[in-house]
Amino acid sequence: MKNAIIASTSTLANEDYLQYLLPELELLFSQCNTILFIPYARPGGMSHEEYTDKVKSAFAKINKKVVGIHEFDNPENAIHQAEGIFTGGGNTFVLVSQLYKNKIMGALAEVLKKGTPYLGCSAGSNICGLSMQTTNDMPIAYPPSFQTLGLIPFNINPHYLDPDPRSTHMGETRETRIKEFHAYNSAPVLGLREGSWIEVKADKVTLKGPITARLFLKNQLAEELPTGSDLSALK
Amino acid sequence: MKNAIIASTSTLANEDYLQYLLPELELLFSQCNTILFIPYARPGGMSHEEYTDKVKSAFAKINKKVVGIHEFDNPENAIHQAEGIFTGGGNTFVLVSQLYKNKIMGALAEVLKKGTPYLGCSAGSNICGLSMQTTNDMPIAYPPSFQTLGLIPFNINPHYLDPDPRSTHMGETRETRIKEFHAYNSAPVLGLREGSWIEVKADKVTLKGPITARLFLKNQLAEELPTGSDLSALK
Repeated sequence: MKNAIIASTSTLANEDYLQYLLPELELLFSQCNTILFIPYARPGGMSHEEYTDKVKSAFAKINKKVVGIHEFDNPENAIHQAEGIFTGGGNTFVLVSQLYKNKIMGALAEVLKKGTPYLGCSAGSNICGLSMQTTNDMPIAYPPSFQTLGLIPFNINPHYLDPDPRSTHMGETRETRIKEFHAYNSAPVLGLREGSWIEVKADKVTLKGPITARLFLKNQLAEELPTGSDLSALK
Repeated sequence: MKNAIIASTSTLANEDYLQYLLPELELLFSQCNTILFIPYARPGGMSHEEYTDKVKSAFAKINKKVVGIHEFDNPENAIHQAEGIFTGGGNTFVLVSQLYKNKIMGALAEVLKKGTPYLGCSAGSNICGLSMQTTNDMPIAYPPSFQTLGLIPFNINPHYLDPDPRSTHMGETRETRIKEFHAYNSAPVLGLREGSWIEVKADKVTLKGPITARLFLKNQLAEELPTGSDLSALK
């Protein structure tokens, strides 16, 4: 059965990396000694090695080992053999390009559907949706497709931001961008604010964390969902 | 000879559409009776007709007629026959997809290089760069390529925004995103704040407007450029 945490962000303001999620991660990865880390999104362009070291430090706090997928000659085998998997944030275009280039998008979808425990943060959460088309990231790489894992029946907008009423800036707000998405696409979009996450247990998809999330459905007014909301039937 | 205005935004806060640019547009389009408008970027998903009507109202103030490219059976001919061309803002992924789908990316590059006067705003400015890879827009459509017109020898980031020092939001700042672009790409990027534009006259490329722009070169510290800066030799 599916078993995943899909988080808006890895890090809250003034906290250590993954700190707010550690109690959840102890439960999610309780049966795992070693976590396979996918560092492809490379935040700030950092190397796979640097990024993996950062993740090792965080997971050491809950006594888990971490190994980077870049250390394997055959990344598809690494996915199939992993006890647990974490895909970190960074740039979603780079991440999706690398998942396709290394031919592991399909393998990842397969093991997650079978129940390998999974943590995604930010870009690593975007890929759990039907497509990466509601990412906030710049298109700094050109992936062969925008289709992603489809672990959940909707799209994520991580780091969701409410409009700033003081702003005179004329660039589009996040809400405007998501409404534009719905001019051409029909997938529901969940605006997931920092501090929120989605828990996937078998076919049950639940909003978690201390705050509300903003749901956008095509041709409908956006709606605030309280924590604990059941998202399983979104379509 | 090339003759273009490439603007960060169509509209300043508390102003009418295109208002701040009208004196420049009278000069740019002085030899034109009719402007060909490319409405493909469809801000907010508005129709080609609605968008063209909005542009007609603005250009009526300087006594120019406007015709939308969607009204032509053969858009490539429309490009070749146009006295002047304006591409409006909206979503850059949608715009670039439509330019390729209608097979006019090449024709547009050709007539602009020969000297058809051109105005671009926001998404219509992004396409003047080497690629659309420094857009702020969501990837709500999948274009066959990110390559664009290359009218100028660098990329644009329109609606450039400085980091907000009060913010506790953990999503990437604009500067971080552009630095990530440079982890994988080498084109210079000009962060063009609202109110700034680029003037292209033959091979002379000049920063215009009342404020500075922020220049990002690969492996170098970002730099503020004063208005009037010569951008012709950027590479």
